[in-house]
Amino acid sequence: MKEFMDADFLLDTDTAKRLFHDYCEDLPVCDYHCHLSPKEIYENAPPKDISELWLAGDHYKWRAMRSCGIGEDYCTGNRTGREKFEKFAYALQYAIGNPLYHWAHIELKKYFGITTPLCSKTADEIYDRANNIIAENDFRPQSIISRSNVKVICTTDDPTDDLKYHKLLKDAQGFDCKVLPTFRPDKALNMNLSGFAEYIALLGKTAGIEIKSYKDVIAALLKRADYFKSVGCKISDQSFDYVPYKEAEDRDINAVFERAMNGGSVSLEGTDAYKTKIMLALGEKYHKLGWAMEIHIGAMRNNNTAMFAEKGADIGFDSVGDREIAYPLSRFLDALNVKGKLPKTVLFNLNPKDNTVLATMLGNFQSDEAQSKLQFGPAWWFLDTMDGMTEQMKTLGNLGILGKFIGMETDSRSITSYGRHDYFRRILCRLVGRWVEDGRYANDTEILKEIVQGISYYNAMNYFKF
Amino acid sequence: MKEFMDADFLLDTDTAKRLFHDYCEDLPVCDYHCHLSPKEIYENAPPKDISELWLAGDHYKWRAMRSCGIGEDYCTGNRTGREKFEKFAYALQYAIGNPLYHWAHIELKKYFGITTPLCSKTADEIYDRANNIIAENDFRPQSIISRSNVKVICTTDDPTDDLKYHKLLKDAQGFDCKVLPTFRPDKALNMNLSGFAEYIALLGKTAGIEIKSYKDVIAALLKRADYFKSVGCKISDQSFDYVPYKEAEDRDINAVFERAMNGGSVSLEGTDAYKTKIMLALGEKYHKLGWAMEIHIGAMRNNNTAMFAEKGADIGFDSVGDREIAYPLSRFLDALNVKGKLPKTVLFNLNPKDNTVLATMLGNFQSDEAQSKLQFGPAWWFLDTMDGMTEQMKTLGNLGILGKFIGMETDSRSITSYGRHDYFRRILCRLVGRWVEDGRYANDTEILKEIVQGISYYNAMNYFKF
Amino acid sequence: MKEFMDADFLLDTDTAKRLFHDYCEDLPVCDYHCHLSPKEIYENAPPKDISELWLAGDHYKWRAMRSCGIGEDYCTGNRTGREKFEKFAYALQYAIGNPLYHWAHIELKKYFGITTPLCSKTADEIYDRANNIIAENDFRPQSIISRSNVKVICTTDDPTDDLKYHKLLKDAQGFDCKVLPTFRPDKALNMNLSGFAEYIALLGKTAGIEIKSYKDVIAALLKRADYFKSVGCKISDQSFDYVPYKEAEDRDINAVFERAMNGGSVSLEGTDAYKTKIMLALGEKYHKLGWAMEIHIGAMRNNNTAMFAEKGADIGFDSVGDREIAYPLSRFLDALNVKGKLPKTVLFNLNPKDNTVLATMLGNFQSDEAQSKLQFGPAWWFLDTMDGMTEQMKTLGNLGILGKFIGMETDSRSITSYGRHDYFRRILCRLVGRWVEDGRYANDTEILKEIVQGISYYNAMNYFKF
Repeated sequence: MKEFMDADFLLDTDTAKRLFHDYCEDLPVCDYHCHLSPKEIYENAPPKDISELWLAGDHYKWRAMRSCGIGEDYCTGNRTGREKFEKFAYALQYAIGNPLYHWAHIELKKYFGITTPLCSKTADEIYDRANNIIAENDFRPQSIISRSNVKVICTTDDPTDDLKYHKLLKDAQGFDCKVLPTFRPDKALNMNLSGFAEYIALLGKTAGIEIKSYKDVIAALLKRADYFKSVGCKISDQSFDYVPYKEAEDRDINAVFERAMNGGSVSLEGTDAYKTKIMLALGEKYHKLGWAMEIHIGAMRNNNTAMFAEKGADIGFDSVGDREIAYPLSRFLDALNVKGKLPKTVLFNLNPKDNTVLATMLGNFQSDEAQSKLQFGPAWWFLDTMDGMTEQMKTLGNLGILGKFIGMETDSRSITSYGRHDYFRRILCRLVGRWVEDGRYANDTEILKEIVQGISYYNAMNYFKF
Repeated sequence: MKEFMDADFLLDTDTAKRLFHDYCEDLPVCDYHCHLSPKEIYENAPPKDISELWLAGDHYKWRAMRSCGIGEDYCTGNRTGREKFEKFAYALQYAIGNPLYHWAHIELKKYFGITTPLCSKTADEIYDRANNIIAENDFRPQSIISRSNVKVICTTDDPTDDLKYHKLLKDAQGFDCKVLPTFRPDKALNMNLSGFAEYIALLGKTAGIEIKSYKDVIAALLKRADYFKSVGCKISDQSFDYVPYKEAEDRDINAVFERAMNGGSVSLEGTDAYKTKIMLALGEKYHKLGWAMEIHIGAMRNNNTAMFAEKGADIGFDSVGDREIAYPLSRFLDALNVKGKLPKTVLFNLNPKDNTVLATMLGNFQSDEAQSKLQFGPAWWFLDTMDGMTEQMKTLGNLGILGKFIGMETDSRSITSYGRHDYFRRILCRLVGRWVEDGRYANDTEILKEIVQGISYYNAMNYFKF
Repeated sequence: MKEFMDADFLLDTDTAKRLFHDYCEDLPVCDYHCHLSPKEIYENAPPKDISELWLAGDHYKWRAMRSCGIGEDYCTGNRTGREKFEKFAYALQYAIGNPLYHWAHIELKKYFGITTPLCSKTADEIYDRANNIIAENDFRPQSIISRSNVKVICTTDDPTDDLKYHKLLKDAQGFDCKVLPTFRPDKALNMNLSGFAEYIALLGKTAGIEIKSYKDVIAALLKRADYFKSVGCKISDQSFDYVPYKEAEDRDINAVFERAMNGGSVSLEGTDAYKTKIMLALGEKYHKLGWAMEIHIGAMRNNNTAMFAEKGADIGFDSVGDREIAYPLSRFLDALNVKGKLPKTVLFNLNPKDNTVLATMLGNFQSDEAQSKLQFGPAWWFLDTMDGMTEQMKTLGNLGILGKFIGMETDSRSITSYGRHDYFRRILCRLVGRWVEDGRYANDTEILKEIVQGISYYNAMNYFKF
């Protein structure tokens, strides 16, 4: 029996151990997509205790707790840090098979040196030990990031953002991690959600453009993209519950845009046509700027109307959608490609049924503009599990070129989640190690080293040109 | 090489063996969903021979036989018991990888003490031995159920059922298994199938309500639910080929209801709107009664028109559908939840592409009303295989809280199918054992015991409050 | 550590080794579906070099190269054989997990005796060695086919084809492989693609029928089917991006047909209705002729408009679709079955999400007309990987009768791809070997031999009656 979470955690062959320890373990981290707050990184305040560090903003943990029948006051409510931690520890002991169980123990070991398994009976002891360690050591964000050997962080930012903290961080003393913005124009597209008209007004004001038609929306977004570029942005990001692709006449799109701006209800068809126009214009711009375009497909958000009304978004009431995506996605990418203006593109899916669709979609539009110009994004959110990551890499290996994969990002809101890069690299080395030891890939150390190091770090650095 | 079907069948690590033999093997069975006939259990007649026991009503076996080119007269027809058994044995030897192969051998061992592999060359010998054993021992239903250590059986019953046999069984001497009804109102919903008007008439008569509108249907169903409650019912069940969710005005629903009652054809949209109204009303009722609501999604039934005309339903001509379910299911559950009236809910899928959708859907509506108030139902029907069960548990582990899973039920029409609980527990212990021995979960015997015993028996007993 | 690609490649248990080496390795090959050119086989010209043999027409290899950022001139362009081979070797070293990596090494070993792993640093040496071997040995198509022990090849042919080369090959001296045509009427169905009217005119001319309505199309196709039958055809094939099934009136179908013949645009609905009528008529005919009907579902073709305009079809710009198929497929098969005219049918899916749908669909229509009259086609194209084949066989094992499976075909355009039958058989024996050694199937050598030999060769020979 392997020891729980020992130095060779998840490394089940000699080849896996060798590849991980000799080549991957100490590589820096390129976190090309996450939801950390540049303000928090800049302000650099230490956490009060491990409950604040772990439980103040992590919807994964809240979901796990709610699934054990734990009340909301222990999740997003006013219970004490100790009470919340005890309840979390209770939930964790039943979370067998859940990445939370691994993440929590990786973080306990990596940042606290604690190797005792966390469960109800050890909760109080670990709570006290962790808090002592926090009190006696530097747990401020910049310290955690530096200790985690992170070289690049790409946050996720609204086009109306002034990027003040990104600029300030550029000149921060003693902190040499690049913190770059990512251009995420979701709010300018989500015409069917409330707050759209107000948002468009803000966008116009920020860009200094009076917005009267959808073309003005585009003009404003392009201007903001230029601004983002000037602050170091190299990536855009887009989230779609499904892939909208609908061609329509200008006047019809403007008609629906006007209706939305006046607070009228808009059809899904009209919204899709509007989104299509905007995305095509943005895609061309991204291509011109040399950016990569990330597309996250398949999250069905805010399913619980009561909790959304009470607590807002991003608190753990999202789940996985199941729409057909192959045809509209093909048409969208082709519309840009046929004009020679398809940017580098990273496609992420949340439903594993789409693994094969995306991994084969890439091949439709590869070219010599980049090594794997179209990338299959790493397993994300609900798929960011050992099974999910393994399946994503097997599918990409089966259907594309795994050796050119840009690898992991955290997509996280938690500053201690850098242990997930360690987790990913172990899973990568486990997979490759098994293949090699099973006689399914030549045991050529030089090539294997290049492949696992590339996927762990260098491919992303080269692909995005950081 | 492991011996075929030995005492450690499917247990491939020491931890798996320990967990199964020490903690799970001898636990009682809680069969919270099946299709056994309470009448047959009550009347308690012994089977004539093993062909009657195995081949008189099991569509799994008929399908396997038909797939080997065996004629219908050996399946549902008039061939002798021996002839049918020989043909079944022939089919079984080609059914490598099929759970039928395991189920048959588990039952031969458990109920007959026969460990010879069944195939064409052993068919006659096993047929004779098994029939001798049946002749010389008590193979009546109550005896088999008692020998299988079953404490609870929830049958599947129409709202118009008088539940006579459930009542009689309550007082049956020397039989201490609870046999409880389950409220399954499918026929009241399936407005688009033939026989609807006749069924509604019968429902009205049974409930003592004159049914003139869809609201009367609801009133009648609620009345029958109260009656079911009085006989011990704690669960409702619903089967959907896809998830209907369509909001509509009362008058439109009544219009379509009237058309259906007068034998007119009704649109799918109209049917969906009607079903939605009924299901919302029933959901509220189930919540009020403290029942759990089971929803089985994705069976496409009676595909073979010729065989349906000749032989009727449930004889092996059903298959797996592939509709998009995430959005309508979210809307249905949310509509109940926003009113604070979502009952405990168990979601079952027949298409494995829906595993991720369901396992993440749960998290949208968990609360402190129960430990895992929303449950991911065990792998069912076509997924009730070693691969299917393993995937269901891995998905739930990845995305929810496996430790609170209510575990297995047979969903069977066959009295000897209780071996499937043994099968399930071995697969559970195999999975958990591998995780522990791979260093992926702490080797804490106390917690592991609670988890595997919970999933094997106690979680269901607590969840349903039997 | 197992040696890379040794004699026991992929055989990881003693049982697997025994089953493969003793029973499967030397069996002949029945390639019941491929895209080889009968003209090329007949003309029997030797390849110039390994680049011509491998890289002149293989879209799998081009896709891999493009995914590494290699320019089109190295794929379909004018670069030298050496330059192309070097680039391919570069791509291959990153293709870890891709079947191309295995196929290439299997072919190097099988046809060239080369066991050095192919990568950038070995590319030139292997290029020279392989070309010397080609120069000094018989690498003509008929020789490769004979050396590969292929007994039957079914090509894929348009109904307007005169089948000249099939006839010539019947009498070819010293070449005893049957090369039979397959009737593939795709062009007569694809009313919505350009060139339809011209094709229908050609079909009419070939059949000697003036085509004025869709019924004339049917008449012409049936006549050509008779002709194909006379040249030895036993199989039809159909490719669907999704499954069209729409019932409509004759006059509506003729209206849409006329519009298409006059170059007008036709709706998807109209096209589906037309396809449905034609397919139902063809299905009946296939049943009458005793043919098997192959249906390939789920390829989304020619996604890259720019490359299609420049280079045409079948060059590596296709990917996997994700439409719902269960219901229309059920209705199509049932419409033939209810008339007693459903032919033997082989269903292939390109999206693995459809594995379960197809494997259970079979069971709806099995009968005593054949052993597994409905077959689940082997993992195909993008799924023709170790993972894809294993999943297809596990799904069929779980849900149907794997022992009656007709097994592998190459579906290939490459004459050296017969190594893929070896690959398939190893994967089959690995799977079965694991089950047996894990105690999940009885270790009965006689039965196991029949099963693995059946799937490797005999089941297909019997099913198609070659």
